[in-house]
Amino acid sequence: MTDHAMNPTTLDAIRALAASLPAGNEEAAAEAARRQDVLTKPRGSLGRLEELALFLARWQGRALPRLDRVEVLVFAGTHGIAARGVSAYPPEVTAQMVANFAAGGAAINQLARQAGAALKVIPLSLDRPTADFTQEPAMDERAFLAAVNAGMDAVDAEADLVCLGEMGIANTTAAAALAAALFGGDGAGWVGRGTGVDDAGLARKAGTVDAALALHGAALADPLDALRRVGGRELAAMFGAALAARLRSIPVVIDGFVASAAVAPLARLHPQGLAHALAGHVSAEAGHSRLLGHLGLVPILDLGMRLGEASGACLAVNVLRGALACHEGMATFAEAGVAGG
Amino acid sequence: MTDHAMNPTTLDAIRALAASLPAGNEEAAAEAARRQDVLTKPRGSLGRLEELALFLARWQGRALPRLDRVEVLVFAGTHGIAARGVSAYPPEVTAQMVANFAAGGAAINQLARQAGAALKVIPLSLDRPTADFTQEPAMDERAFLAAVNAGMDAVDAEADLVCLGEMGIANTTAAAALAAALFGGDGAGWVGRGTGVDDAGLARKAGTVDAALALHGAALADPLDALRRVGGRELAAMFGAALAARLRSIPVVIDGFVASAAVAPLARLHPQGLAHALAGHVSAEAGHSRLLGHLGLVPILDLGMRLGEASGACLAVNVLRGALACHEGMATFAEAGVAGG
Repeated sequence: MTDHAMNPTTLDAIRALAASLPAGNEEAAAEAARRQDVLTKPRGSLGRLEELALFLARWQGRALPRLDRVEVLVFAGTHGIAARGVSAYPPEVTAQMVANFAAGGAAINQLARQAGAALKVIPLSLDRPTADFTQEPAMDERAFLAAVNAGMDAVDAEADLVCLGEMGIANTTAAAALAAALFGGDGAGWVGRGTGVDDAGLARKAGTVDAALALHGAALADPLDALRRVGGRELAAMFGAALAARLRSIPVVIDGFVASAAVAPLARLHPQGLAHALAGHVSAEAGHSRLLGHLGLVPILDLGMRLGEASGACLAVNVLRGALACHEGMATFAEAGVAGG
Repeated sequence: MTDHAMNPTTLDAIRALAASLPAGNEEAAAEAARRQDVLTKPRGSLGRLEELALFLARWQGRALPRLDRVEVLVFAGTHGIAARGVSAYPPEVTAQMVANFAAGGAAINQLARQAGAALKVIPLSLDRPTADFTQEPAMDERAFLAAVNAGMDAVDAEADLVCLGEMGIANTTAAAALAAALFGGDGAGWVGRGTGVDDAGLARKAGTVDAALALHGAALADPLDALRRVGGRELAAMFGAALAARLRSIPVVIDGFVASAAVAPLARLHPQGLAHALAGHVSAEAGHSRLLGHLGLVPILDLGMRLGEASGACLAVNVLRGALACHEGMATFAEAGVAGG
């Protein structure tokens, strides 16, 4: 049930959507908070679980939130910079892994099932890699808008929660370039080992980012244009999905470094642009912790994961389910006849 | 299916059991590691999930571990020191919460169900609080052995995993005293706000611990006797359960500060005494992080929880399920036709 009416056909249309993001439902959050305070536990003793229940209430607009329809969106894209030796794996692995997703053999297939979530994989023109962004913008406006719209369309309006993740050989380099464009710093400060590059590969990643920063220069000051110039189709799609989710009152769980970089422009376009988003985890990729700091997001999990595929976001869904199980199922002090409520 | 043959009738019998703890099954762990290395992901990219799969393999003795029967054991006890104003709640709340567990209204009821675990609550002589350990040992040897044996008997020999937690008004003070006895330091260094005491309550907790350290003195050098003198029935029972689980090749997930202190004597009785145990989370209780450091345990979750009831341990079961789902369900590089395996 996709509402195409909201689909932007220009970058300015995206900016207009981002400028008018709906706020959370504070009434629902306050009602959820009142409930938390009378459940049979010392106030605040469930820590983050209580905050998560309120977060879901605020962004679903219901004091008793639900997680009946959890959607895991994994966007896949191919990258011109893959030819620059910035990954431990060859570029064809992106399409091979998409086939593995379809066959049910990847980590995210298992984690989505375990979390009771529906997995949707969206390959984005895998046979047409983006341009090498050390030479020219990764995407022209048309390709960029198509990717953003693909992300927006992927969000089911009936979903209760959306997890955002990706697959794309070379995309941690794109994410590092985007993070540097948005928050400053150089290549060495943002790149990491990704799927496992050696020191020489790490230096090539930093060099690629620095070359991109030098080429695109002042044009990167525009967060949306930065995403177009040094991002990739799957990054643009995750941005679009985060935007569409906000417009549809659906909270979002972001996966790792690439997903966090992809949605970061939304925080630059609107001060509360990512208020409806949770960081599912902090990954082992070097720049992720720094990036989450810039975004003001505190990760739910910290398990040294660095796989992508929405794996960390999906694992965090279990924590959200625990939070809601308590929120909905616990007795109040009065109901249970327990003193001290 | 309880095997009472192993039940110790003296403190020395417990020491003998602890001295002969079985090692893990390194063959099963190595086979699990070989499998992890050919699954369709960069090696090590699932981080802690990979380690957890190996841990379960090692301590279940199977390369493909299972979590079909996960048991959550919540031991409840009452404490003489509760009369010293060391809790924000009156002592009768322990029994009231046990009734709430039975009625299904507590946090752990919801979290156990959500984690697919069976909850067993074991109240331990709630009508007979332990003695005030600032005046005399909390338990005589008979009461102590009964509690240890109750913990041992609570472990189902067929369980695949056991979570250990507790309920007992005033027991964070007992845990602080035990931690100080085992690892040094004074009351102020180990007490925290528990269910929410104010500054005066915190000072009373520290004073209670210091008085206990002064009274029992050198006798606390014996870790088992320390557990008897400044612990409580539910702490002794968690120790017994951790011991029985090890003897039966069942891995354990420890909950918060009280559970961690309770099982700590096992690490003092045998250098690998807690090798079969995971810290489900690090709680917001002040001393927990320090205590886990002494035990060499890295918590799975860090969510600011401080409820007890095995709530943090139970939530961590979802992470273990995710780890096993990947370990068992993922395709290998060869199976999936993905390059780079």
